[in-house]
Amino acid sequence: MSRFDHRRYPTFAPVPMTSRRWPDRQIRRAPNWCSVDLRDGNQALIEPMTAAQKLRMWELLVKLGFKEIEVGFPSASGHDFAFVRNLIENKRIPADVTIQVLTQAREELIARTFESLEGVPRAIVHVYNSTSTVQREQVFGLDREGIKAIAENGARLVKDYAGRYPNTDWTFEYSPESFTGTELDYAVEVCDAVTSVWQPTPEKKCIINLPATVEMSTPNVYADQIEWFCDHVARRDSIVLSLHTHNDRGCAVAAAELGVMAGADRIEGTLMGNGERTGNMDIITMAMNLYSQGVDPELNLAGMDEIIETVKACTQLPVHPRHPYAGELVFTAFSGSHQDAIKKCLARREGDETRPWEVAYLPIDPADIGRSYQEVIRINSQSGKGGVAYVMHADHGYDMPRWLQIDFSATVQAYAEDTEGEVGSEAIYSLFQETYLPDSPRWRLNDYQLRRAGGVDNLELTIQDGSQSRQLSGTGNGVVAAFVDALERFVGKSIVLVEYSEHALSQSADAEAVCYIQLNIEGDRSCGVGRSHDIVQASLLAILGALSRSPALADTSSAAA
Amino acid sequence: MSRFDHRRYPTFAPVPMTSRRWPDRQIRRAPNWCSVDLRDGNQALIEPMTAAQKLRMWELLVKLGFKEIEVGFPSASGHDFAFVRNLIENKRIPADVTIQVLTQAREELIARTFESLEGVPRAIVHVYNSTSTVQREQVFGLDREGIKAIAENGARLVKDYAGRYPNTDWTFEYSPESFTGTELDYAVEVCDAVTSVWQPTPEKKCIINLPATVEMSTPNVYADQIEWFCDHVARRDSIVLSLHTHNDRGCAVAAAELGVMAGADRIEGTLMGNGERTGNMDIITMAMNLYSQGVDPELNLAGMDEIIETVKACTQLPVHPRHPYAGELVFTAFSGSHQDAIKKCLARREGDETRPWEVAYLPIDPADIGRSYQEVIRINSQSGKGGVAYVMHADHGYDMPRWLQIDFSATVQAYAEDTEGEVGSEAIYSLFQETYLPDSPRWRLNDYQLRRAGGVDNLELTIQDGSQSRQLSGTGNGVVAAFVDALERFVGKSIVLVEYSEHALSQSADAEAVCYIQLNIEGDRSCGVGRSHDIVQASLLAILGALSRSPALADTSSAAA
Repeated sequence: MSRFDHRRYPTFAPVPMTSRRWPDRQIRRAPNWCSVDLRDGNQALIEPMTAAQKLRMWELLVKLGFKEIEVGFPSASGHDFAFVRNLIENKRIPADVTIQVLTQAREELIARTFESLEGVPRAIVHVYNSTSTVQREQVFGLDREGIKAIAENGARLVKDYAGRYPNTDWTFEYSPESFTGTELDYAVEVCDAVTSVWQPTPEKKCIINLPATVEMSTPNVYADQIEWFCDHVARRDSIVLSLHTHNDRGCAVAAAELGVMAGADRIEGTLMGNGERTGNMDIITMAMNLYSQGVDPELNLAGMDEIIETVKACTQLPVHPRHPYAGELVFTAFSGSHQDAIKKCLARREGDETRPWEVAYLPIDPADIGRSYQEVIRINSQSGKGGVAYVMHADHGYDMPRWLQIDFSATVQAYAEDTEGEVGSEAIYSLFQETYLPDSPRWRLNDYQLRRAGGVDNLELTIQDGSQSRQLSGTGNGVVAAFVDALERFVGKSIVLVEYSEHALSQSADAEAVCYIQLNIEGDRSCGVGRSHDIVQASLLAILGALSRSPALADTSSAAA
Repeated sequence: MSRFDHRRYPTFAPVPMTSRRWPDRQIRRAPNWCSVDLRDGNQALIEPMTAAQKLRMWELLVKLGFKEIEVGFPSASGHDFAFVRNLIENKRIPADVTIQVLTQAREELIARTFESLEGVPRAIVHVYNSTSTVQREQVFGLDREGIKAIAENGARLVKDYAGRYPNTDWTFEYSPESFTGTELDYAVEVCDAVTSVWQPTPEKKCIINLPATVEMSTPNVYADQIEWFCDHVARRDSIVLSLHTHNDRGCAVAAAELGVMAGADRIEGTLMGNGERTGNMDIITMAMNLYSQGVDPELNLAGMDEIIETVKACTQLPVHPRHPYAGELVFTAFSGSHQDAIKKCLARREGDETRPWEVAYLPIDPADIGRSYQEVIRINSQSGKGGVAYVMHADHGYDMPRWLQIDFSATVQAYAEDTEGEVGSEAIYSLFQETYLPDSPRWRLNDYQLRRAGGVDNLELTIQDGSQSRQLSGTGNGVVAAFVDALERFVGKSIVLVEYSEHALSQSADAEAVCYIQLNIEGDRSCGVGRSHDIVQASLLAILGALSRSPALADTSSAAA
């Protein structure tokens, strides 16, 4: 325990900004995306991808619409080399997709890198060296000049080797690796030295990539770094400024977003944020963040389930149930008030589903990415009437009035607390049946005869009370009033019909009606439901059901007739 | 697929800021933490916590050092009510911990809430109602005045009921729920109405909590909202300003951090970010972010494994392997260059482990939170010499020179590519033994006799070559030179000793020595390793081993004698 001591850690120095423009900006178009799933992502797996897995991932990335894909580190791995050759020799690279490969700034590795790319129509060669103070002092034992010389030399070698393969359209990319741990003026100095060698133009740009190899500060500081860099780097109009953030502080997506506001053009990341340690920034999240703000993400993420399945199969890593946009629970509401609000907002959209999406608690329509509404509302002991009502309506066709929702949700909540778990849609329906439409009701409706004369309805009927058949009769204005009158005489108590509601049951093929009743029997309220092909029968059954559930009659085991 | 259309989503409106101070701030002390694991977290679980799980979570939260813990929604859940009573009646609340309970702004719920708290020495009653445009229009069907009246009425009721329990020290908290979807001026108006009822003072503050119930914008916009709110709200000096962020856009931690820079005093969140949908902000990540910058997090997170185990057991949700600070892979480096850099930085710290932590790729020392260095460096086909050398040294005591690291890492990489998986420490050691110290070597050293006279060493020895015993002799300056001379005669080729290195084997109980040799035999280099209690034998065995591995002798199956 004594090791847990914050005093061992230095504070990250902020960027001295005289003015700052990025906080006033908004992202109005998608950056250029570059997937590094097959390189950074692959490099960070317990079991690196097999050739078949790489190909599956590659095909998904192409299908989603990535135009730049880093496919490996061919000079460091025989498998990566073979994969690059496979893509080229089997003409797997679509005309609008550019592959990218990573190499350190050393001649034997650069030579091998170009060898791997022989015959490719177009490619990005991405060369890097570490520039941070820690790497300079502790890993390389070199000063600023020595480290800059590595970068310059790498840039020169890349340019020279590219000249030997004139049939390929080359783009060069340089990363001052561990940029976030590098003094900003020195990062600019090194990148200027590199572009001084490459001499990019606005027509033929190079890529300068500024990695948060380790996320070292709050994301606003990274944005400051990017804005400062953009303001000070030479040949800015000839540079595609790229970011590559990691998630050590859980803010990789935020850093990338604020970095784009600060001037970046391009984002390197991975699907679901796979990558070294805590992972890279998650392109799915950032793209869907743009999408949810009305910005074209320039990736087609409609098939979220396919994306998840492929990522899981290729990385052998799970997708967390709360992963933004993708996790199985992210569109799910268990809490009663949330369910209630969602139900109301969805109901208002019915029939006008093209209008702008504004639904409480749901940033996007789950259907956009292949999720169903059924997943949205799930029921447990934290749920209330709204969620239960939604399930009963969406799955079973019962459009319960509010007073019945309250009555029934108490039953569901008690059940959920007893079982200490989720209550599925079928279980809710069973509870509904057992509660309001039991197979063996206390009283069963037999024959009846209704006569209306002189503005008064007269109802005569028999009900089955256990083994006994009982004759009842009553009068009133309408069949319901007449039946209530008959029942008052039967049980010897005063009965008031408080609520009445009915609708056709949409999910029933032969157009059944369902009727909901609330009775007040000497101060106690009870609800009943009746279901029948005939509206009269549905009403009578609902009243009989409410009567049989009345606490006022609970102790009168064989009725009061 | 046609549903995937960004045009259905409105853009979030930015906050018009005339000046903006938060981007120039840094967080120099931890905010007041409030855990909502037992409320928001619990409310979002497929299976809500049992009483036993709640108690286990409660005890962990207390142990970690939380001083404010939201324990439930007692008016909405019988289980939550019972849990609150259990805490109070069994005196489970330490003197410096305050429990908090949530309630909607309705009298019957507020009454029940105070009932649940009867007898508690101190508590926070947290009342909320939804204030966003979507909730006002679509869920409640009320205008601004109507929604404000709900808040004011709730505030009044809370104050009234608190007066009925004068033996408890009450703190009031109000949340304009769905704050991020609420017009800022209206949020201020509602909160002012609430504090106008409560009349907090700098000595007896109330809590105003501004939830990103749904994360709706980049985190800088949330920070703008917080700064604007702080600048405009009445009675700011009598308010503890609290934030409660959700992770819909993957930026909940960033939003909380920037929000604290913008003026917030207090953070509500959960362990590992459990909570509705994508979850709440993760207090572990934010606290460790502070820690890694030299700021006291005011939580003791040294026992990360216990935290993970408890969270998993209580929520039945996994912790992702890349979860910042906590996931099993977040301190792991597979890539060769990363391993190399880590190994060098760690080596420089040896003997001076109290100096500030500056290790490439590792934001904090894994040991601080109970993780071992063994987990840091793991080997697969993406790994290089540094990682393999680290494992051989850390686990097996062999301190290989760089040239042997290069030689051996090729063997490990080939094996990793063949097996397509991770290579464990024991497998690496077996590969090392098979490669350099085989059970059945090509030649075995038998007896030898060394005589030194007149500045020259003369070595006579026999080696076992399959079933044959061979007599060798050679001379030179020292035993190694004499042996090389003898071997030159034996194989009929010129042999140059290029590298020599040796050390005592620290992990060997009886102080064995290990010797590393590189020979150049007619242009081909080969490495050998010898291990013995005796330094002479270790050297001779290493040379014999290097000789037997020489490609130059690969085709001379029974030697050249």
